Order: sequence, then structure tokens, then C-alpha cells
Amino acid sequence: MAKKRLAPFYMRNVKLTVEYDGTNYSGWQIQNRHSAESIQEAIEKALRKILQEKIKVVSSGRTDAGVHAWGQVANFKTKSKLACRDIQRGLNSILPEDIRIKQAEEVSLDFHARFSAQSKLYRYTIVNDSFVSPFTLRTSGLVKHPLDVKKMREVKRYLLGRRNFRSFQAKDKKERHSVRTIKRLDIRRNKKLIYIDIEADGFLYRMARNIVGTLIEIGRGRLKPQDIKGILRAENRSYAGPCAPAKGLCLVQVRYKTKDKRG
Amino acid sequence: MAKKRLAPFYMRNVKLTVEYDGTNYSGWQIQNRHSAESIQEAIEKALRKILQEKIKVVSSGRTDAGVHAWGQVANFKTKSKLACRDIQRGLNSILPEDIRIKQAEEVSLDFHARFSAQSKLYRYTIVNDSFVSPFTLRTSGLVKHPLDVKKMREVKRYLLGRRNFRSFQAKDKKERHSVRTIKRLDIRRNKKLIYIDIEADGFLYRMARNIVGTLIEIGRGRLKPQDIKGILRAENRSYAGPCAPAKGLCLVQVRYKTKDKRG
Repeated sequence: MAKKRLAPFYMRNVKLTVEYDGTNYSGWQIQNRHSAESIQEAIEKALRKILQEKIKVVSSGRTDAGVHAWGQVANFKTKSKLACRDIQRGLNSILPEDIRIKQAEEVSLDFHARFSAQSKLYRYTIVNDSFVSPFTLRTSGLVKHPLDVKKMREVKRYLLGRRNFRSFQAKDKKERHSVRTIKRLDIRRNKKLIYIDIEADGFLYRMARNIVGTLIEIGRGRLKPQDIKGILRAENRSYAGPCAPAKGLCLVQVRYKTKDKRG
Repeated sequence: MAKKRLAPFYMRNVKLTVEYDGTNYSGWQIQNRHSAESIQEAIEKALRKILQEKIKVVSSGRTDAGVHAWGQVANFKTKSKLACRDIQRGLNSILPEDIRIKQAEEVSLDFHARFSAQSKLYRYTIVNDSFVSPFTLRTSGLVKHPLDVKKMREVKRYLLGRRNFRSFQAKDKKERHSVRTIKRLDIRRNKKLIYIDIEADGFLYRMARNIVGTLIEIGRGRLKPQDIKGILRAENRSYAGPCAPAKGLCLVQVRYKTKDKRG
């Protein structure tokens, strides 16, 4: 039986809420030696400077290269007694400007950014026009074909709830357990912009982008809303639509039980 | 007496509405050989490719390096019979993604993007917080000191109307005539963001950014609203506040008489 390693009593657990523009990064986690820096590396490097300690930062989940976050959550353990406010200030003064620490707070030692998470909310932004504004370029995916948002919304009845999402999981990464619960699926149009909000207790690799790609196929009329039933049943990636571009996706919020939040 | 050069009858005058993220450009107009490309150069180069003709593009006014536009207006004369819709499409397919042609339309030969303009509306975006979100980084100026928006608004009574704005004109560029009319000055706060809208019949060099810099001094309490009276009276740049950073400024709209618009 593996022995559970207990953190020494003087350890502190610090929770970070992180906002980043993922354009220039290889994603949250280190990919390989040749890729661009990852968000995690940038934060760990900055923490090492501030705390004079080698720090391992755990996030609520990886985000792919080019995916953004308004409210990614991460945590790390430290022996340092530096006030959270100073950790936040220190990080923001060292980190590149496209990564910002919105909050740093002490939480109980059992808080784990990934395992304590109850749900994650992703937003995908589609520009449904003939061109993309230079100001939404980095944070949206362009679809030139007119999209029927009403049709896209009909999908809710098939996707909401506890289901096996294997068909929406990237082929190259197979988690044994592919059942997840989608708690919310909102599709709103504001002139030329379409926002797709997906909240689930967890996301399989590329699940959010594969769902969006499939929704676009439905909005364009190349798939029917009810086709989702067959796609889910197939449990096969090749039945669903293409993967939507990373730059339109943003991790908006990670939700935790109140007790974990207070620590 | 100078002879007025008339355009040949087969000439067309095309009005462009242009949106750009100015971050990577040296401004609207060519600065010098060593600076980054200008928006004007990029558009002229693209037009030359599409129309197989050397084209000179005139704008409503220069924007500085780093200043953005939602609705810059420009025009050019051409012998080409290419439909405006195709000019727009062609330009958008050749131009870098941070410059977009929102509209191309034929106007009367006497339309001139600068001389026909009745007013221009600029917006300055201030982030009044301890840090800037990665998503507003390129299009805002950061002010960490709390700003008193009410105090800033009191300035309206001194700045609105026809006045000599020499004190708000950059030292290095003196236009003989420095009287302009500010038609609108709106200052709104939305949580951590402050928007300053300035509409005038014309702007002196750096006038918008110098007014914003002075408004910030007032919001911070380092100047009083009524100090504006003395600053205007001085007709001397050194009396006004510092020049606000370019990246917060955006040319929102250029207004023309209806007849010019229809052509």
C-alpha cells in the first residue's frame, strides 16, 4: 500500500486565479523541449524567483496551445510565509503581461486545483461574418457561412446531462472513463458574434472544441440536431464534426465547493 | 493662380472604412525608412496588387504609432472598374489580419477623407486597477491610482465648445491655427474601465492624448477641474498634463455630411 505523504505542518497551500492570453504559449503544460514556453513553466519560474524555492504548480486542467483563460485555477504548496497579496504583486511584476494573477489566497492543505473542482465553464467565441475584427482576432474562430443558432440550440436536449462523450474525445488521448456530465450549454448570438458556453464536471481531451466543431456543422446545416444521438452512440471520434480552432476557446471559470474555497 | 487639376471623367473615387490594431504599425502614415510599416503603406501596397495601378490613399487624419481605429476613413482615386465589393474582399485577403476593410463604397469625385470630414470621435480606454487584463492590454492605458470620474467630468464645462487648444498640442508640431471645437466629451466608468469619448471638428497633433493625460491628473487630484481654464489661457504645452500612452486611443468614427457620404 502506498504511504500517503503528508505535508509538514508549516506548509501553506496557495490558490491562484490566473488569466492568460494563450496565443504565445504552448498551452498550460510543458509540451516538449522545442515548443514555446508553457503557462505553467512561466509561473513556476516566477515563483522560484519570488519564494527562493522550487515550486510545482497544479492546475484545474491543461489548456491546449492557443486556448485562453479568464479564470484558470492553480495551487501550490510552499514553506514561505510571504503574504498572498505580495505573492500576487510579485508574480504580476515578473510574469509576461499576457499572464496575470487575478487573485492569490491561502486555502486548506487538502485543496487540489484539479481534484477539488466541481465543474469547469468554457466559452467559445465564433465570429459569424465575412471577416474578423483585428480586436477579436486572437480570441475567436471565424465561420463565414451563416449559422442557424436556433438549430444549434436544439442540440441541448441531446448533450445535456450524464453521457459517454467518447465520440468527442481526441483520437490520440484515450481516457478509460469517458462519461462526463454537461451541466449547462448556452448558445447566444450578439450581432456577428456567437458565444457557446459549456459547463461540465470535466472535459475529455479536446471535448469542448470537438463539441463546438460539431455545433458549427449543425448551424451550417451539414448535420441535423438529432444526428447527435447517433454520434454519441457510436463512441467513435470520426462520427463527430471537426475540432474548432483553439484561439476561440476560453476557460472562464472553475467551480469548487464552498469549503474548499474558504480552505 | 494654381490651376485646379480635374480628374478625368472615367476616374472613380472609392471610400474605405478601415479598422486596425495599431500595435505593430508606425501609425497611419509613413514615418521614416527605419520604422515599422505604416497602415497607409500596407493598404497602398495591397491596392497596387489588386488594381495593377499605383494608388495614393488619403485618410481623415494620421493616427500615431500604436493608436487603433474602428472606423478610420480613407479614399483613393482609380481608373479600375472593379466592383467595390471585390476591392474590399481583395484587400482583406491580402492585408495582414490586424488591418480590415469594413466597407468600400464609391463616392463623388469631390469627396476627400480629410477635408470633407465634419468631426472625428476618439475613445480612450483607461484600466483603473492594479493590473491590466491580457485581453485589454493592447487597447488600454493603465492607471493604478484611483480616479475620481466625477471630478474628471467637471472639466466638460471648460473644454466643450470652440477654443484655442494650443496648450494641448505637441510641442514639436505647431499648426498656425490651433482653434478647434470639441462637440462632445463623455467620461463613463464600467467597473475597472473608464472610457473617455472626445468628438471634435478636428484634432491638433497629440491633442486627444494630451487631454486624456490632463484628465488623469485631475482624476488623481493633482490638478483641479478649474485649472483647465488657466491651462487653456496659457496657450503653452507645458501647462497641461502628460501625454497618455498611444495604445489606449482609438479612432472610433469620422463623420461626414450626408451628401458626401452618398457621393
